[in-house]
Amino acid sequence: MKTYKIAVLPGDGIGKEVMPPALAVLNAVGEICNIGFSYSEYDWSCETYLATGSMMPADGMDRLSQHDAILLGAVGYPTVPDHISLWGMLIPIRRDFDQYVNLRPVRLLPGIRCPLADRRPGDIDFWIVRENTEGEYSRIGGRFAEGTDAEGVVQTAVFTRHGTDRIIRYAFELAQKLGRPHVSSATKSNGLFHSMPFWDERFEKMAAQYPATRTDSHHIDILAARFVLSPEYFDVVVGSNLFGDILSDLGPGVTGTIAVAPSANINPEGRYPSMFEPVHGSAPDIAGRNIANPVGQIWAAAMMLDHLGEAEAGRLVLRAIETALADPAVPRTPDIGGTASTAEFGAAIAAAL
Amino acid sequence: MKTYKIAVLPGDGIGKEVMPPALAVLNAVGEICNIGFSYSEYDWSCETYLATGSMMPADGMDRLSQHDAILLGAVGYPTVPDHISLWGMLIPIRRDFDQYVNLRPVRLLPGIRCPLADRRPGDIDFWIVRENTEGEYSRIGGRFAEGTDAEGVVQTAVFTRHGTDRIIRYAFELAQKLGRPHVSSATKSNGLFHSMPFWDERFEKMAAQYPATRTDSHHIDILAARFVLSPEYFDVVVGSNLFGDILSDLGPGVTGTIAVAPSANINPEGRYPSMFEPVHGSAPDIAGRNIANPVGQIWAAAMMLDHLGEAEAGRLVLRAIETALADPAVPRTPDIGGTASTAEFGAAIAAAL
Ligand SMILES: CC(C)[C@H](C(=O)O)[C@@H](O)C(=O)O
Ligand SMILES: CC(C)[C@H](C(=O)O)[C@@H](O)C(=O)O
Repeated sequence: MKTYKIAVLPGDGIGKEVMPPALAVLNAVGEICNIGFSYSEYDWSCETYLATGSMMPADGMDRLSQHDAILLGAVGYPTVPDHISLWGMLIPIRRDFDQYVNLRPVRLLPGIRCPLADRRPGDIDFWIVRENTEGEYSRIGGRFAEGTDAEGVVQTAVFTRHGTDRIIRYAFELAQKLGRPHVSSATKSNGLFHSMPFWDERFEKMAAQYPATRTDSHHIDILAARFVLSPEYFDVVVGSNLFGDILSDLGPGVTGTIAVAPSANINPEGRYPSMFEPVHGSAPDIAGRNIANPVGQIWAAAMMLDHLGEAEAGRLVLRAIETALADPAVPRTPDIGGTASTAEFGAAIAAAL
Repeated sequence: MKTYKIAVLPGDGIGKEVMPPALAVLNAVGEICNIGFSYSEYDWSCETYLATGSMMPADGMDRLSQHDAILLGAVGYPTVPDHISLWGMLIPIRRDFDQYVNLRPVRLLPGIRCPLADRRPGDIDFWIVRENTEGEYSRIGGRFAEGTDAEGVVQTAVFTRHGTDRIIRYAFELAQKLGRPHVSSATKSNGLFHSMPFWDERFEKMAAQYPATRTDSHHIDILAARFVLSPEYFDVVVGSNLFGDILSDLGPGVTGTIAVAPSANINPEGRYPSMFEPVHGSAPDIAGRNIANPVGQIWAAAMMLDHLGEAEAGRLVLRAIETALADPAVPRTPDIGGTASTAEFGAAIAAAL
């Protein structure tokens, strides 16, 4: 039996509530598929920060690096500024482990009310490939004239050919692998004078290497509108760190709720562990009540299985989610119209395996 | 009779087609309300650029400054890179005339199919207040290691207290004036380390001066999702140049089409002329066929009337748009289900006055 070493980081808020059901589903599918998991759980979080002044211990990255993959819950706590908590754990993991692909499915699931008129499961089904290590997310910059009326900030984005080409190439390869050779690029070259014309140039260069792939490029403003007006148009959408971030919340919004959406932070070369997390955050407003929807976390675990090469197990987990959601008799959490607790809904998905 | 001097810039593509109906509607409402318009039309455009190497003549800004307002069609042409054409005319006008408010309504009109399920005209009705002179739209930066594998770009955003405070204040004042004391702020302080924590800080400081106004702050990713999931929640949304841009295409997308949405670039102090334009672009794909929807341009003219202090005339034009759209017998352009030409639809709106 193959055993995978998984670093488990429940994090803050509902992260701690949705993680146990995800581990239960992993264990259940492991039995079916004859795969083992050995978990190391770390309680690194904003509470750690409040107690120690840092989000994770000094040897945190070393410890994580000894695992085959990382399963993350959510990070964020009302009394710790977001830019402190995120730049203290989530963003360094993405960067130091060179998880340059942030892959996020947009898919209308059965049993989830779509906010758009007349859409059925199957109608909306595409992938967002987000750059995950550079671009707009940057600590380069600072304040001038601090505390005076002339005060201001500068914030500098950096895009490299290395970073831009590899994410765009991943998108083209994915489109090919899926048998859906169509890649859409998010740009804003009419407003962002340096970064986006460069992005467009690299996109065009890469497109020339994939002549059988249909391509189009959309300014991020109109692209956001098109996600609402014609989501069925898209197959693979590639965007910068910020644009990919926006689109990958908007996409799940268009398909009903961000509570069910997963996110894979992938180092495709396998040099470092990849990290899997739900798209949603720590949701302090509902934390502690055991009503958080565990689907995002469970689907993230399914993406982790895929990434580990256990495609069959990943497929089974996604099918279990869909089976449970499609059956109105199966209990579910209040956010999608049920009355079940996080644990009950999680158990129902495990049972659907 | 009061006469207003209007600089008319049809620009490129469908800009040239939607402008005549807007002027016809202005003339018609002028007769009703006893207002005169004296138009100076300038053909500055990408064609000018291709012929002369610049989008407008050297004394262009001087000439514009002699008008009470500017009515703009659209700028952009397939053979001129967007960042050249926009930074050669639209963006300098916004900046040099200190049009720091970009005000855009999001409103579900009668007769327009809403992509969201179960929404009726009146359900979605709010305002986006976008910063229009600084922030992410910037030419600060450039390329390094050009032409080599190590190539990259840096792009620097600048936010000042001056620029941030005045746009946020405008949003609070607008909310008060509308009798809808609720302002939502678009941020991304968890990812953008310097700019957005600063934005949040200024937003909180301003909120303290308007204790009767309800406020909330949303990361741009989840905010985009909320535009789709609960657009009725919003009253006034304030965002940076880039975030406001994205939201003000997404909003019109959520209400059916960006073809009908207007945009006011306002210098509230009246030191310089303000500029009014549709949200849509020059649409080279349909240009020359006389099928472009003129509503965005006509509604922009209505916002211009408002700004000039002719609120009654502005109201009449908006009512004429709504009356025409609400009556299925009135001809309309193909994008919203009709077979009429731009000119016919424009004439129908003028007739509805
Ligand atoms: C054309 C472009 C530069 C412009 C912008 O981004 O400001 C447009 O999208 C708009 O919203 O008016
Ligand atoms: C929490 C935040 C920094 C993060 C991001 O913007 O990357 C989140 O929104 C996400 O998409 O994973």
